[in-house]
Amino acid sequence: MGNIAAAIEALSAQLGEKVSTSDTVRTHHGQNETYFAAMPPDAVVFPECTEDVVTAVKICAQHTCPIVPWGVGTSLEGHALPVRGGVTLSFERMARVLDVSQSDLVARVEPGVTREALNEELRATGLFFPIDPGANATLGGMAATRASGTTAVRYGTLRDNVLAMTVVMADGRVIKTGTRAKKSSAGYDLTALIVGSEGTLGVITELTLKLHGQPEAIAAAVCAFPSVDAAVDTTIQAVQLGIPVARMELVDALSMRCINAYSNTNYPEEPHLFMEFHGSEAGVAEQSETLEALAAEHGGRGFQWTTRTEERSKLWAARHTAYWAIKAMWPGRHGMSTDVCVPISKLSEAIAAARADVEAHNLPGPIVGHVGDGNYHVLLLSDPKDPSELDTAKAIARRMAEHAISLGGTVTGEHGIGMGKMDLLKQEHGEGVSVMASIKRALDPDNLLNPGKIVQIN
Amino acid sequence: MGNIAAAIEALSAQLGEKVSTSDTVRTHHGQNETYFAAMPPDAVVFPECTEDVVTAVKICAQHTCPIVPWGVGTSLEGHALPVRGGVTLSFERMARVLDVSQSDLVARVEPGVTREALNEELRATGLFFPIDPGANATLGGMAATRASGTTAVRYGTLRDNVLAMTVVMADGRVIKTGTRAKKSSAGYDLTALIVGSEGTLGVITELTLKLHGQPEAIAAAVCAFPSVDAAVDTTIQAVQLGIPVARMELVDALSMRCINAYSNTNYPEEPHLFMEFHGSEAGVAEQSETLEALAAEHGGRGFQWTTRTEERSKLWAARHTAYWAIKAMWPGRHGMSTDVCVPISKLSEAIAAARADVEAHNLPGPIVGHVGDGNYHVLLLSDPKDPSELDTAKAIARRMAEHAISLGGTVTGEHGIGMGKMDLLKQEHGEGVSVMASIKRALDPDNLLNPGKIVQIN
Repeated sequence: MGNIAAAIEALSAQLGEKVSTSDTVRTHHGQNETYFAAMPPDAVVFPECTEDVVTAVKICAQHTCPIVPWGVGTSLEGHALPVRGGVTLSFERMARVLDVSQSDLVARVEPGVTREALNEELRATGLFFPIDPGANATLGGMAATRASGTTAVRYGTLRDNVLAMTVVMADGRVIKTGTRAKKSSAGYDLTALIVGSEGTLGVITELTLKLHGQPEAIAAAVCAFPSVDAAVDTTIQAVQLGIPVARMELVDALSMRCINAYSNTNYPEEPHLFMEFHGSEAGVAEQSETLEALAAEHGGRGFQWTTRTEERSKLWAARHTAYWAIKAMWPGRHGMSTDVCVPISKLSEAIAAARADVEAHNLPGPIVGHVGDGNYHVLLLSDPKDPSELDTAKAIARRMAEHAISLGGTVTGEHGIGMGKMDLLKQEHGEGVSVMASIKRALDPDNLLNPGKIVQIN
Repeated sequence: MGNIAAAIEALSAQLGEKVSTSDTVRTHHGQNETYFAAMPPDAVVFPECTEDVVTAVKICAQHTCPIVPWGVGTSLEGHALPVRGGVTLSFERMARVLDVSQSDLVARVEPGVTREALNEELRATGLFFPIDPGANATLGGMAATRASGTTAVRYGTLRDNVLAMTVVMADGRVIKTGTRAKKSSAGYDLTALIVGSEGTLGVITELTLKLHGQPEAIAAAVCAFPSVDAAVDTTIQAVQLGIPVARMELVDALSMRCINAYSNTNYPEEPHLFMEFHGSEAGVAEQSETLEALAAEHGGRGFQWTTRTEERSKLWAARHTAYWAIKAMWPGRHGMSTDVCVPISKLSEAIAAARADVEAHNLPGPIVGHVGDGNYHVLLLSDPKDPSELDTAKAIARRMAEHAISLGGTVTGEHGIGMGKMDLLKQEHGEGVSVMASIKRALDPDNLLNPGKIVQIN
C-alpha cells in the first residue's frame, strides 16, 4: 500500500464519515477556475474543528501524504490543485461566524465562511467586512492568497484586515498568530507570514478579522475619459490630495463596448472610471465634487454621481456586469485573467504596452483595473478549439508580468502565485525566493502542505 | 586571538576608518534609554552602502562574531545592546533620502534617515511620512521595532508603511523584500517578516516607504472627561462611526496635574482626550463637531477645537510636554515606560487595574494612551537610590503585560520585545515562539544577528 492509501485508511479510521473518496466529491475538489487540467485529490476530508485538522495533519505527516486546503475553489492560479495527489481539506463544515464584537470591530470566524455570508451576518450590527475580490470566496481562502479587489484602495488587502489566526502547522502544532489588539510589536509577524502563504506553511482554522463601521453615506460616480492616461492622472491627483476614495475602477473602451452591447446602454466607448465614496453625507458630496473637478481638468466627460441606493446600483451595474458582458461578446471563448500591479506612475505605460501586445496578437483582451492601487487585469479570451490561442494568451500574460517587474511592480497584485507564476516569482524576488524556500523547509521539511506551490523545495 | 578580535582585525583591514574601537564611540553605542546596564560593543562599523554591510556581515559570519544594527539608540527594551559582545553597525553614514516620487507617494531612504529629517526633506513636496513614535528615531530602527505612536490610529504602523526593503541576510545574501507596487500577492511577505524582527533576521540597508499627502486642513481638539471610561467610550463610538481621527490621545488626571504645574495651565485634573483631524476644511470641521457631540454625550467638558496653526500648537502643547512635565514633577527619578495594547473594549478595565496596582505600590505612574488603538503607557518613576523601587516597577509592568494577555491583548503595542520581554513573548505566543525560533534558526543558524533578542536559539 502506498503512503497516500495508508494515510487515507488511517484518516477514515479516525475521522469516519468526515473522509470521502467518492468520485463526485473528489472531482468537485479537483477543479479550478482557470486553464489548468482538473486534478482530483485521492480523498477529501471535511474537518469540523481545529482538532480534526490536527488529527488529519498528524496522520498525513506520519504517512508523508500531501495536504491541500480548499475553500470554494475560486482561486485563479491553480492554488488548490493537488499536484502530488493526497488529501484535500475542505472547509465547508467549518463555516461558522464564532463571535462579533461591536466595540472592538472584530469578528472571529471559521475559514469556510464566505465574505458574503459574513456580511449577511453583520447586517444588523452596523459593521461590515469591506474586502471584495469579486468572487464569493471563503475568508480562509482570501487570507491564504492575500486577496483584495475593488475596495483595497481604501480598506487595504487581507494583509491589513486579519488580526490573528489559528494555524495548524505541518507537524500538528497549533499556533495563534496574534491577538485581538489592533497592533503589536511582539516578535515576528506570524500573521503576515501566513497570510498569502497559500496553504504551504500551515492550515488556517480560525481568523480574527477587522471590521469597519458601515458608512453613514455612500456615493457612486462614473465618468468617461479621452484616454487611459487621463483617467490615471485623475486618480493620481485624487490620491495625492488624500481623498479617501473607497473604490476607483478603470474600465477600458473595449470593455465599455461589451457593456453597451450586453446591457443595452450607450456609454461612450472610451475609458471610464467608476468610483465610490464612503463617509458622512457632506463628506461624500465633497469627495464627489472634488473628483468631478479633477476629472474635468483631465478632459473627463459626463461625470455623474449619486448617493441614492437605486441610482448607485444602476450607475455601478456597468462595472459589475463587465465580466459577463465580456464573456457574452465572445461566447465559447475561455477567459484567462492576468493580474499585475505597478507603481501608479507607470500604470498608463503598462496598460498601453499590454493593449499593444494584445492587439498585435489578435486576441480579444478587455481591461479593467483597480486603478488606485496600480493593479489591472486583462481578460484574455482564447478559443478552446485552437490551443495555440491559449499559448498566445499565456505568452502575453508572461510579457505583462515581466514588464511589470521592469517598471518596479509585481507579477501578482491579488491572485497569488499558485502553480501558475512560480518562475515569475523568481524573476521578481531573485534571492528572496531562496529565503522563502528556507522558511518553507524550516516549517514544513517534508513538503506536505500544498506542495508544488509558491516555492519548490524538493 | 578570540573570534571577535579576529573579526575586528579583518573588518579593519577591509573597511579601514569605517571601523572604530575608540572608547568614546563604543561607549556611545553601548547606552540605552531604559534600565539595562550599559554594554559597549567591541567595535563599531559605520557602513556607507549596502556593499559595506555585506562585507561586514560576511567577515563576522566567517569569525562567528555577533552583529547588532544601531539607529540612534532610542529603543526602549534594550534592543541594540550587544549582549554577546561583537560589532555594532551604526547607520549614521547611511542617512540619505535616495528618491521621492510624488506620483507614487513613495520615498526610498537609507536606514539612518530619521523621521524628522525625512519630513524636512519632504516639506516642499506636499507629502509627509506620518508615523510619529515621539522620539526622532531612524526609519531603519522604526522598521526594525515595528514602531508606531500617536498617528497609528489613522495611518497604521511601520508594518503598514514599508513597501519594500533591501536586507542583508546572515550569510551575506542581499534580498529585496518587495517592490514599489502598492500591494502584492507574490509569495511570502518578507517585508512584514523583517519589519519588527529587531535586527535578528537581517540587516535593513534601504527602505521604500509609503508617503501621504499633507492634509488640506488640520484641526486639533481637546476635551476633559469625568472618567477614563467616558473618554474611552467616546473613542469607541468615534471609531464605530468611521470618523478618520488622525490622533486620539488619552492623558490621565495625574499627567494633567503634572502638565498644569509644568506649563502653568489650569486644565481640570481629569482625564483628557487630545485629538487631531486631517482632511478638507469642511471635513475637519465636521469631524470636530461630531466628536464634540459624542464627547458631550459622555460627560465631556470644555471641548475646544481649532484649525489655526498657532492655536493648534497651544492646544496640543499639554500632550507634547507631558513627558517633560512628568519628569519635572519627580526630579531625579528614573522613568520606565510600560507598553501594552488591548482590545479597545478592555482598555478602561486594563487602565483601572494598572492604576490600582501603581497606587497600591506607592510609585508615581502617570498614564498616557494611544486610545484609538487600545495602546497605553504608564511611566513608572522609581528612585535610583532605592533599587527596590525599580524592582517594584518591573513587577507592576509584568503584571500589566500578563493582564493584557488575559484580556486578549499583547505585551507590547509598539516598543518591541528586545531583551526586556522575551519571557512575556512566550506567555503571549506559546507555541508561536517555537515557530519564530524555527525561522530564526533557518535564516541565521549561527545566531549572529542581534543574538539574545526576541527568541533564544542557543
